Amino acid sequence: MNTSVMEQEEAAAGGEADSQPTYSIERPVYDEAFIRSQLLHRRENSTTLRQRLAHRFRCSSKKAKAAVFSFLPILTWLPNYPVKQYMFSDVVSGLSTGVVQLPQGLAYAMLAAVPPVYGLYSSFYPVLLYTFFGTSRHISIGTFAVISLMIGSIVVREAPDSMFYVLSANGTNASAVLDVEARDARRVQVAVVLTTLVGIIQFSFGLLRFGFVAIYLTEPLVRGFTTAAAVHVVVSQLKYLLGVKTQRFSGPLSVIYSFKAVLFDITSTNVSTVILGLTCMVFLYVVKDLNERFKKKLPIPIPGEIIVVIVSTGISYGMFLSDVYNVDVVGKIPTGLLPPVAPEFSLLPNLVTDSFAIAIVGFSMGISLAKTFALKHGYSVDGNQELIALGLCNFISSFFQTFAITCSMSRSLVQESTGGKTQIAGLLASLVVLLVVVAVGFVFQPLPQTALAAIIMVNLLGMFKQFRDIPALWRTSKIELAIWLVAFVASVLLGLDYGLLVAIAFAILTVIYRTQSPKSAILGHVPGTGLYCDVDEYEEAAEYEGIKIFHSNSSIYFANSDLYVNTLKEKTGVDPEALQAARKTQKKLTEKANGDRNPSLNMCGKNKQQEVTHEVVSYDDVVEQQRNGQLGAGRRASHSEEAVFLEPPLTGVHSIILDWTPATFIDSVGAKAIKQVIKEYAALDIQVVLAGCSRSLLSELDSLQFFSGVVTPATAFPTVHDAVLRCRRSNPRTSAAPTDGPLPQIHL
Amino acid sequence: MNTSVMEQEEAAAGGEADSQPTYSIERPVYDEAFIRSQLLHRRENSTTLRQRLAHRFRCSSKKAKAAVFSFLPILTWLPNYPVKQYMFSDVVSGLSTGVVQLPQGLAYAMLAAVPPVYGLYSSFYPVLLYTFFGTSRHISIGTFAVISLMIGSIVVREAPDSMFYVLSANGTNASAVLDVEARDARRVQVAVVLTTLVGIIQFSFGLLRFGFVAIYLTEPLVRGFTTAAAVHVVVSQLKYLLGVKTQRFSGPLSVIYSFKAVLFDITSTNVSTVILGLTCMVFLYVVKDLNERFKKKLPIPIPGEIIVVIVSTGISYGMFLSDVYNVDVVGKIPTGLLPPVAPEFSLLPNLVTDSFAIAIVGFSMGISLAKTFALKHGYSVDGNQELIALGLCNFISSFFQTFAITCSMSRSLVQESTGGKTQIAGLLASLVVLLVVVAVGFVFQPLPQTALAAIIMVNLLGMFKQFRDIPALWRTSKIELAIWLVAFVASVLLGLDYGLLVAIAFAILTVIYRTQSPKSAILGHVPGTGLYCDVDEYEEAAEYEGIKIFHSNSSIYFANSDLYVNTLKEKTGVDPEALQAARKTQKKLTEKANGDRNPSLNMCGKNKQQEVTHEVVSYDDVVEQQRNGQLGAGRRASHSEEAVFLEPPLTGVHSIILDWTPATFIDSVGAKAIKQVIKEYAALDIQVVLAGCSRSLLSELDSLQFFSGVVTPATAFPTVHDAVLRCRRSNPRTSAAPTDGPLPQIHL
Repeated sequence: MNTSVMEQEEAAAGGEADSQPTYSIERPVYDEAFIRSQLLHRRENSTTLRQRLAHRFRCSSKKAKAAVFSFLPILTWLPNYPVKQYMFSDVVSGLSTGVVQLPQGLAYAMLAAVPPVYGLYSSFYPVLLYTFFGTSRHISIGTFAVISLMIGSIVVREAPDSMFYVLSANGTNASAVLDVEARDARRVQVAVVLTTLVGIIQFSFGLLRFGFVAIYLTEPLVRGFTTAAAVHVVVSQLKYLLGVKTQRFSGPLSVIYSFKAVLFDITSTNVSTVILGLTCMVFLYVVKDLNERFKKKLPIPIPGEIIVVIVSTGISYGMFLSDVYNVDVVGKIPTGLLPPVAPEFSLLPNLVTDSFAIAIVGFSMGISLAKTFALKHGYSVDGNQELIALGLCNFISSFFQTFAITCSMSRSLVQESTGGKTQIAGLLASLVVLLVVVAVGFVFQPLPQTALAAIIMVNLLGMFKQFRDIPALWRTSKIELAIWLVAFVASVLLGLDYGLLVAIAFAILTVIYRTQSPKSAILGHVPGTGLYCDVDEYEEAAEYEGIKIFHSNSSIYFANSDLYVNTLKEKTGVDPEALQAARKTQKKLTEKANGDRNPSLNMCGKNKQQEVTHEVVSYDDVVEQQRNGQLGAGRRASHSEEAVFLEPPLTGVHSIILDWTPATFIDSVGAKAIKQVIKEYAALDIQVVLAGCSRSLLSELDSLQFFSGVVTPATAFPTVHDAVLRCRRSNPRTSAAPTDGPLPQIHL
Repeated sequence: MNTSVMEQEEAAAGGEADSQPTYSIERPVYDEAFIRSQLLHRRENSTTLRQRLAHRFRCSSKKAKAAVFSFLPILTWLPNYPVKQYMFSDVVSGLSTGVVQLPQGLAYAMLAAVPPVYGLYSSFYPVLLYTFFGTSRHISIGTFAVISLMIGSIVVREAPDSMFYVLSANGTNASAVLDVEARDARRVQVAVVLTTLVGIIQFSFGLLRFGFVAIYLTEPLVRGFTTAAAVHVVVSQLKYLLGVKTQRFSGPLSVIYSFKAVLFDITSTNVSTVILGLTCMVFLYVVKDLNERFKKKLPIPIPGEIIVVIVSTGISYGMFLSDVYNVDVVGKIPTGLLPPVAPEFSLLPNLVTDSFAIAIVGFSMGISLAKTFALKHGYSVDGNQELIALGLCNFISSFFQTFAITCSMSRSLVQESTGGKTQIAGLLASLVVLLVVVAVGFVFQPLPQTALAAIIMVNLLGMFKQFRDIPALWRTSKIELAIWLVAFVASVLLGLDYGLLVAIAFAILTVIYRTQSPKSAILGHVPGTGLYCDVDEYEEAAEYEGIKIFHSNSSIYFANSDLYVNTLKEKTGVDPEALQAARKTQKKLTEKANGDRNPSLNMCGKNKQQEVTHEVVSYDDVVEQQRNGQLGAGRRASHSEEAVFLEPPLTGVHSIILDWTPATFIDSVGAKAIKQVIKEYAALDIQVVLAGCSRSLLSELDSLQFFSGVVTPATAFPTVHDAVLRCRRSNPRTSAAPTDGPLPQIHL
């Protein structure tokens, strides 16, 4: 790809050599009044709103067909499926993926705190359904660690161990015993109804075209969040790896409680379990490394996970690990599928907020992966249809006792790298799982839980690499680093649900912060270019005498208008209040000197506005007299005396140009503040003009009735340079020395 | 003031007539690479961070003095107090204000759900203290309806009637009787500790220079909120006006409950109470109207409220209203002040969030009024010192059993319009209240509550006029109307505290909405001007052939980068995915036609990138051949065949210019998205360049490592016109017809 662009640039460079293009503009100075009256005419819109609406909601067979095709994407690709070309790679990819689905399904069920077989169900139904509704050809739908963990923490919260202790009379002494079956049944109910809700939410969001909600999950947020999820997962799996029996915690600070519980019980570690678990981990890690290293040489990746499952099941079965060495095993796996059952909707009320979190995280994981693959392979995925597809997968499957799914990164990479071409690969993977469920599920009953914990942990090791983001973000963007850290810390400490909420709120606040704490500068002209730059930063930028150009890179609205005005006064060095006060004092001195000719003016604050006007008028008189060459020959002595007193505090600035090039919107508070400032400066005979307003900003100003009174369209200019030229010409004090072209004064 | 500006403009117009300034620039086309290497040089900053810090934290006697003066503003103005000039007006104003403080203190205590005398305390201590710490010369500190109501609702929530029923054995039958004294004592405790907390919060915010928090209370929000407060106040006073005895409600929906309770009990209305109350209201309303109408003729406004208080007290006393007609009266008013008592801090934990709301509302009311007066009278108020002053007033006074205060609009207007010049007026007003408390407080014991309710309600009638904002905002800004309505509805239904929170959250979200849903357009050149406008909106704007200028008025960050990219593809009409797909199909057709010479390319998606490069290279070959006049004499027949197939989907666009003039910041997600798009288009031989980036945006792009690979500083231009000129020159397909100056093609 680089080649083409580099060639283009060479061509461009070549072009420059023979004829260097010139930026050449010669035109009168425009202001907004001229632009409106002479230059620009609004195009009449031929289509009315009604026509547009009618067009939008018109029904036609073509539209209906498109809607059906968009809802059932399988109709578009299956009829054209090139069997000869694609079938073989799809079969290979499907089988490979299925072989990964199986152990992941079993393992992630443990994360979701439900019996392993439900992980198998979840690896079958949704995967099958996605074939019909999905638009991505390469993602592998199914169980996913982060989502499973989120489900798990909710399930444990709603059905904690403590709810299921029953009194059992064992011979003589009665003791409280955990009723595991009742607990698991309840947990499955919770997970299933949660999944139904997630499905409904995703489906409705898809229908409402709410695919955009995923945008709030910005990349640093997602990476911080998933790193936190990895921490949660590792902590939650420690007990399985060590064979320690501790309670499972949920809610804020659960990570710390869980970790403490395992530490306190570390003495009861089962040595066989640890050895087996660590062996599995090392093996999986090596396989992962090999797969990575010999990616190109291996036709399909080594299925490390299924090997671990099969071998450890074999060992467990052969050596009676469960009975002799007391190693925890998966236990009962019923054969066959369950008939559909309506979810237990009475559990709904407590789960609504949680399911929103799961729905959004699930979707955003799915869509980001789908987009990556689509980009790589040159097709497009439809975000809203993906939401609908995920929603339907979750909703329908939940009637068959599954828990919420999305796509998993590791599995999708397997599916894609083994040559998967279409959704057929996913379909075949689901059939592999089905086969196991209906035929040989019972085989995995002796599978040690520690092997599954090893699978989960090794899968998540990659996420810890995301800690490397921290130094990288430190260099590129502190704000994004803050988002990462907030997402991570909040999600680790508060749990994934609240953590996500906090992180999203924080990410939104950073945007506010960015718009609200703008960088501001005084601009100067780079001579002869028409370009204006920060005078503090660039040597070439030079200010014009008497003109201050104030630039602030933000829009002006309620949360920053005060700041804008204050910075303006500070940066330009012209503070109307101070000047006004100085004027007042001098005025009083003048009056005292002249005797109290007009004592009423002094009496009461209410008359102050007239006072100011009076002052300005008299000052203007003086100026006019100066212009007419009558300096010193004022109508009354007091007038010229006032003028002498007034001159010094005016600081030599006659015009302030507000560069609104970066402003994209303004609200009534902002408009009022600016108008107020313009009036304040006008009272001091300093004109304030606007430059570089975009057309949309101008129409907002119009609807806010900004252009009225002292502020007219003639005080707005399309570019800073227009404003500068006009200000230099229009001000009487500089008109004494007219020069053509820019003649900048070097700024000290 | 208008005069001066108009004269200036005439002068400007006159200046135009003799020499119309000309916008004239002739220079080479600049790109960022040239600017960096040749044009601009960064100024070396002579002051290091350390020096600046040292400068900032250096101690000097001057600084210390300034700090003391800023903390105790009385030191600056009292020594220079011009007794002769100011004393008389301050005394008049102080007495007038004191006469208003008195009835308002009594009345607002009812709103705060504490006995009336505490309203008098609250009208004395803080007002006295503000004289020392305050910077505003005209605002009248004291009880304020909205704050009192907020306190009242919290007090009632924390000490509801239901807590104070005691069993009393009246002769034979025992019944539950409300222990009013215990209840009121408790309520005072709650109000006082709340006030302490409000004081601490305001004081700390002031020290931390957090005065800016008030900016989030944008004007539409405050107006919607205060209108809601007026609704609350009227509903809460109905029962006093009617003499109906109902419970006082608090929390969400309390307005509806209160209103319902009064309606259900309307039959028990006390006719004497209603008649007295309505008479007072009519009288007050007429007085208010007269004051307004004869503002200029009256030396001081008619003190309607104190007249109502005195007359109704007299009538009540003379006619034994309380005993004979069963009219509720104020009751016991102890004479004298209370000794200082430490607040009951054990009540704190429940009040923290509430006190934040009160602290912020109180401050923002105060500062907005103070700023208005300061602007009118040409002095400045210091937001942070105002926070400190209010905080100290509340904190210290709370030890003397007051409830939270701020300034009241109606009273401040009295103080200012009767000629108040300095804080001395406030001081005198507080002494008036003190006199009543220590000497004649008991006189007001027969004052009917309905008279106080009338005072409160008439004072708040003005706030209902704010409903007129709705049509006004509808015309100017729908978003601000939404803020108004949300603030109003949320505050009415959820109560003032939650309502305020919801309103602030909503106001923040509108900013997000504005930055996130930008207006976008394709720009065209207004010939000969160097200005670029929306081609759909302005007749004069014309596009150059093969160049699309895409403008979107927002920054590019995580929440809108997707939208930006999609809109870009849609508006320019150049969709790389569609083109890529079309290419693929055609390529396949070509390959089929050529026989399967290279079947491996077809095999696997992984090779796709090479495929694309291959295509582009071969296409470039063709272009080069065209340039060399060798069209059709390609090295191989297949090449020219491909070119023929590839030409149509390229849509004739060779350059896309992204106008980033309005962009103020970019984050890593945005930068990645843009870079991705540039690469996608580069693969299709369409160059994408950036125009109008501000210097700060460029440095953000630099730190995000944006300029690497295909994106170089040579693809960024300071203005759109530079970019257009370069794109027209550099593209080989248009270089066949080189013309000087802009030669726009009319856009169809």
